[in-house]
Amino acid sequence: MRIANLPEPPYYMVSFTSQRTEVDDGYGEMGYAMAELASRQPGYLGFESARGADGFGILISYWTDEASIRSWKAVVDHVEAQRRGRSDWYSRYEIRVAVVQRAYGFHHENK
Amino acid sequence: MRIANLPEPPYYMVSFTSQRTEVDDGYGEMGYAMAELASRQPGYLGFESARGADGFGILISYWTDEASIRSWKAVVDHVEAQRRGRSDWYSRYEIRVAVVQRAYGFHHENK
Repeated sequence: MRIANLPEPPYYMVSFTSQRTEVDDGYGEMGYAMAELASRQPGYLGFESARGADGFGILISYWTDEASIRSWKAVVDHVEAQRRGRSDWYSRYEIRVAVVQRAYGFHHENK
Repeated sequence: MRIANLPEPPYYMVSFTSQRTEVDDGYGEMGYAMAELASRQPGYLGFESARGADGFGILISYWTDEASIRSWKAVVDHVEAQRRGRSDWYSRYEIRVAVVQRAYGFHHENK
């Protein structure tokens, strides 16, 4: 995974914080498919994700505007992925939609 | 790690997306110390974090307001942790400050 290259704020971020079950059944394939599908949506800017050995994970997707976020939530294949998420893959999750106001970072020249 | 229990929006979230180096030297201890110190700051609401085996990680901290975020950035021991982060522990990081507008989730009753 890499840090997303994003424009200057303001833009939107959606955090998806989740606890995985021990069920795998198609999880990895669905993840790749959803990442690919999201990247083709209007307003998509990028995403970042990390999951630790304890099954706790955070995925952040970035968008130009709130309408794009609502459209992505309603895409048919994504709705099916959400259903599988609730029935099989996640014991709990929380989604937060936010407006990024400022951003700054650090990049080591030699690393 | 657990999903943070937060009040209804609006509140602030600060995402810290980072790539770790292979240097450990005090990293874990500093992480615990900073989590503990942050939890005692005015305006602190909670945090969530995950890091994968590839060293890519996301930490999100939640705050009541922007002034609390700026105060936390300036706490002396935290400034020293930031310095160590740049010199030793992270090859790259990005921080984004955002206002959460809405939040919703899912909790499986039996998991």
